[in-house]
Amino acid sequence: MRLVKSIDQVRKAVRAQKEQGKKIGLVPTMGYLHEGHLSLVRLARRKCNFLVVSIFVNPAQFGPKEDLREYPRDLKRDLQLLKKEGVDLVFCPSVAAMYPGGYQTYVEVVGWNKILCGASRPVHFRGVATVVLKLFNIIEPDIAVFGRKDFQQAVIIERMVKDLDLDVKILTGRIVRERDGLAMSSRNTYLSAEQRKNAAILYQSLKWLKQAYVNGLRDPKTAESRMAAMITARDGRIDYIAFVDKNSLEPVKELRRGTLAAFAVFFGKTRLIDNTVLGSNLDIGHLFIPM
Amino acid sequence: MRLVKSIDQVRKAVRAQKEQGKKIGLVPTMGYLHEGHLSLVRLARRKCNFLVVSIFVNPAQFGPKEDLREYPRDLKRDLQLLKKEGVDLVFCPSVAAMYPGGYQTYVEVVGWNKILCGASRPVHFRGVATVVLKLFNIIEPDIAVFGRKDFQQAVIIERMVKDLDLDVKILTGRIVRERDGLAMSSRNTYLSAEQRKNAAILYQSLKWLKQAYVNGLRDPKTAESRMAAMITARDGRIDYIAFVDKNSLEPVKELRRGTLAAFAVFFGKTRLIDNTVLGSNLDIGHLFIPM
Repeated sequence: MRLVKSIDQVRKAVRAQKEQGKKIGLVPTMGYLHEGHLSLVRLARRKCNFLVVSIFVNPAQFGPKEDLREYPRDLKRDLQLLKKEGVDLVFCPSVAAMYPGGYQTYVEVVGWNKILCGASRPVHFRGVATVVLKLFNIIEPDIAVFGRKDFQQAVIIERMVKDLDLDVKILTGRIVRERDGLAMSSRNTYLSAEQRKNAAILYQSLKWLKQAYVNGLRDPKTAESRMAAMITARDGRIDYIAFVDKNSLEPVKELRRGTLAAFAVFFGKTRLIDNTVLGSNLDIGHLFIPM
Repeated sequence: MRLVKSIDQVRKAVRAQKEQGKKIGLVPTMGYLHEGHLSLVRLARRKCNFLVVSIFVNPAQFGPKEDLREYPRDLKRDLQLLKKEGVDLVFCPSVAAMYPGGYQTYVEVVGWNKILCGASRPVHFRGVATVVLKLFNIIEPDIAVFGRKDFQQAVIIERMVKDLDLDVKILTGRIVRERDGLAMSSRNTYLSAEQRKNAAILYQSLKWLKQAYVNGLRDPKTAESRMAAMITARDGRIDYIAFVDKNSLEPVKELRRGTLAAFAVFFGKTRLIDNTVLGSNLDIGHLFIPM
């Protein structure tokens, strides 16, 4: 497994593989890897012949008051984990290489970047789309894999790829959860023991919703207030709870198959996200729990 | 010379050439070609083995009150001209192919897209950057050629290419002028006989500026008011006259070598642009006239 920091070098390394007819895969990450990331790496590994994982804590996707500085990093451990997964190349560029002085170009998926998570994180998806486009231009992957925990991100990337005529296939991997159902996240490390325990309510609220939907619940407002009550009872502070069409991200008036239920919730200063699509299975750990 | 309308087909055609080791050139145009365009085509022809010219009147770069509908078109004549220049492929996509339903992704070179021409045309450079990025992703050219009449456009494209890690070399071609010095433009066709005659003042004002600079003029405000007086005396309505550094596009406090003098002027409803860089030669027709 090669570790490459320079843009020119990674481009050269990947092109040499392309010329040999290899199919290139990319899993973009911000590092501090957990089983969620590794499941995406395993998915990508099966779909390509030369697998690149990027590790880059992207300043452009953090707002000025967000946790860019505190974001957890552990490159040494990340490299050990990736080596075990049979990754071919890890790309770890510096901020100065990705955003040199005078940098001023940004991509926006207009509309979708200001709703849901974009409402409280106004520059977030602009930063995500921009860094992903840069990584695509540098690596020129045939396939790229994103997780469905940030469902909105995956939808935005798919839209960008289509709109900008990028020749890369986007695959998405399912949410991987802790034993109590909490979606894995590098940010879970911020939680105190009590917050960590309370945060299991997020998964419980999704489980409740799935069951309530099966039992006939169709009104999004009722669903929202019930979930909000469950979460606030455990000291979670709601950023948003939304029920939207999973393709258009438009709010639905009635819950139905294909409705995305998504939320962001603060426990203390830590903002956690999770979601599920109605009519699909809700996954926990490495198992699918049918609701 | 092949004429291709479909994105998939042009991608296939160009890739087949790439696989044979050909160097790909692209000249993006909005058609209604004049000698200015053809000089860019000739420049590109010398620098590549397979030359693509795109003809696409890009709705995204026109404001709602601008001349998208009236913009002159003559595909038949354009194709005749391009055939004579030895162009290999002409790419003429439809609006529906470039901006299908649900389209919502745009690129912005922040800051530079709201100054000079961007001040009175707020969506213009966003539209230009977006369509050029799409064309680069579709054609994957090794080189691409832009004219220096829209100097700001060329600077923005160069910035975008650098920032987004695009692997394409940007070349710029000089301004080609009519016999009386008016910069060639598809929009010159909008001018009445009297406006056409008056519009020669634009070149005269640049000639005056060059000479005044050689004679010691250094104050941008004096230069601006003198040029504005010359132009308004011929019924030109000033949109802007600016003196900026040609690399940073920052306004200069003192005229110097490398200062870009640029303006946009209305004659009736027709908005014309022109520019020159101080310390360089001012070109007219196919000759350089040393000042």
